[in-house]
Amino acid sequence: MYRNRQDYIIIRQEDYMRLLDEQAIEHIALGASLLGTGGGGDPHIGRLMALNAIRKHGPVKLITPDELPDDALVVPSAMMGAPIVIIEKIPNGNEFITAFKGLEDILGKQVYATIPIEAGGVNSMIPIAVAAQLGIPLVDADGMGRAFPELQMVTYHLDDIPASPMVIVDEKGNSVILKTITNNWAEEIARVCTVTMGASVMISIYSMLGRQVKESGISGIMSFSEQIGRIIAEARKERTNPVNDLLSLTHGYELFKGKITDVSRNIEGGFNRGLCQISGLEHHSGSSMQVSFQNENLMAEKDGKVLATVPDLICILDADTSVPVTTETLKFGRRVVVIGIPCDRRWRTERGIETVGPRYFGYDLEYTPVEQLAGEEEHHGV
Amino acid sequence: MYRNRQDYIIIRQEDYMRLLDEQAIEHIALGASLLGTGGGGDPHIGRLMALNAIRKHGPVKLITPDELPDDALVVPSAMMGAPIVIIEKIPNGNEFITAFKGLEDILGKQVYATIPIEAGGVNSMIPIAVAAQLGIPLVDADGMGRAFPELQMVTYHLDDIPASPMVIVDEKGNSVILKTITNNWAEEIARVCTVTMGASVMISIYSMLGRQVKESGISGIMSFSEQIGRIIAEARKERTNPVNDLLSLTHGYELFKGKITDVSRNIEGGFNRGLCQISGLEHHSGSSMQVSFQNENLMAEKDGKVLATVPDLICILDADTSVPVTTETLKFGRRVVVIGIPCDRRWRTERGIETVGPRYFGYDLEYTPVEQLAGEEEHHGV
Repeated sequence: MYRNRQDYIIIRQEDYMRLLDEQAIEHIALGASLLGTGGGGDPHIGRLMALNAIRKHGPVKLITPDELPDDALVVPSAMMGAPIVIIEKIPNGNEFITAFKGLEDILGKQVYATIPIEAGGVNSMIPIAVAAQLGIPLVDADGMGRAFPELQMVTYHLDDIPASPMVIVDEKGNSVILKTITNNWAEEIARVCTVTMGASVMISIYSMLGRQVKESGISGIMSFSEQIGRIIAEARKERTNPVNDLLSLTHGYELFKGKITDVSRNIEGGFNRGLCQISGLEHHSGSSMQVSFQNENLMAEKDGKVLATVPDLICILDADTSVPVTTETLKFGRRVVVIGIPCDRRWRTERGIETVGPRYFGYDLEYTPVEQLAGEEEHHGV
Repeated sequence: MYRNRQDYIIIRQEDYMRLLDEQAIEHIALGASLLGTGGGGDPHIGRLMALNAIRKHGPVKLITPDELPDDALVVPSAMMGAPIVIIEKIPNGNEFITAFKGLEDILGKQVYATIPIEAGGVNSMIPIAVAAQLGIPLVDADGMGRAFPELQMVTYHLDDIPASPMVIVDEKGNSVILKTITNNWAEEIARVCTVTMGASVMISIYSMLGRQVKESGISGIMSFSEQIGRIIAEARKERTNPVNDLLSLTHGYELFKGKITDVSRNIEGGFNRGLCQISGLEHHSGSSMQVSFQNENLMAEKDGKVLATVPDLICILDADTSVPVTTETLKFGRRVVVIGIPCDRRWRTERGIETVGPRYFGYDLEYTPVEQLAGEEEHHGV
């Protein structure tokens, strides 16, 4: 996600929070929902879950991958399913006690820390709640550097770390343990279980050792989310526009500004899929943009020309509040800004593109980096 | 299944086979496919699996429930899914090593014996193959006294024995362990896993202790299948008609004789569902029968009048060879005899009818025993 790794390290050393308090959680929730690119679950629900957990159990210790012992067992915690459903189905908090217990029994080792699998409103927050509830540290890394809709879409998969044993737990008390021969089988079987178990479940997957997190994780994602969140929160307080600061921090591009004129969506096979049409405002007046999504935003086209595709990040912000808009809350009349952010370099390898590139999602299209597509547009544009 | 329990015990004492050899397996396969009432899988594939296993590993020890230690762990082994698919997907034999190992880890106890969950061409044979391969005894009992399409349709369920922990294993090497809060949840989740994993998988479910098998199992089902199979096999050899002997052994009724004029079927949600139309021959000439099925035969109507419904057994035999016909091999032009057999008394209790009666399968119909429906018909009939 960071074109210049150096920038990021400097920022982290300055701003690093060792204990996540309420303020940090507010910022992470806000920032992660930008990196969630429309997916990763509802930021409000996620925020409440994490805040409740630290109010009850105390603040959470955030550690860097480097601080992990090489042989420590690190288990991601996340929600799986159509994120729209979680609004009606808040986890009861016991799901991960069950899930982690199941994995500990199988792996014969105690869980040392949890870690997010992706960035997003709920999936950045669940690991905070789990860490608080179980009294374990949270690792400042994830497997996507953003959100993606399927389980094999993680850097861990690129490094051949198995998704299974995987545990799926619902709020009713049912649990499923998968041991699969490939990560795509884990995705396929888990997806149908999720739909049957109520369209939204808690999962533990890609159990790893400390040394694997160091090698394969996208380091610093929680701190990076926090920085983004702080920029947005402070701009709101000061009634300024944070977009330029966000573009500068993320090396992103403003792709479009406009008013949503149509959203079509359907929940299908456990995913929230759809299309959002936006009619241009201000300097984009007369143009239109179409954003397609599958939980996350997948492709942005302006007047029929592709400006960004997965794995690059396509983020939609409310034009008035600068709050990131999830695909569930896209609605007619909302004024939005669409920005494109370069993805982590690992998604731009051959295997990365194979796993999360436009062709995987059914678009007959070579992947071209957003810097090239949107940079060109800026050059030739208005 | 036995209106007079006494009859059966006398037979078992005379004919009991302690070691199942090839001859016994041939007879059990044939007899169980009658009790499978159209389901329970293809008898030919089942036969081959069991024969191969005993040729490789030696004959299987058949024990009565009474011979089980009270605290012995007994684990059923079965196939789940649309039985039509197994014809293309013969199990590789390692599935149950994986499945039993999974359960032993969870339950902290070694498997003492296996047991069929139902009677049927494949599901009576798989436990024989498993017993041979793992060198464990096979218990002469099942949970249905016939075949049924869903996992909660067992006498164990009537006695509140939990279906889970349940293990599902496919031939590719994927496995799923379910721990569910109800047996219906086990059925629902397992069904979608089955469909995703290739429409036909191996399962271990309703792990029990010896004393639970004694209380809840339908005792003697393998021996009873063998007797039925022997009657059919001997009649084929002697070119006689076994139907009267079968009716006498099973206390059954000949419901119809005719030629199949139409079969409609579809594989839906992991089930093989459909309707079979039969046009009367001989003394049934001028009449017609419709048999509806969901893996197993569910209801038989003659000229619009119901003659038998689940949980009573509706069995279709080839009129020429007297070999039981599974729902997959029903086809236009085949001449068949339809017989109705009273089910085990436990299916006629309130909870039994609730679990497997006609209303559960969507028919707006009170259950009436086949003795009454078909007995009346015999009285007023031709």
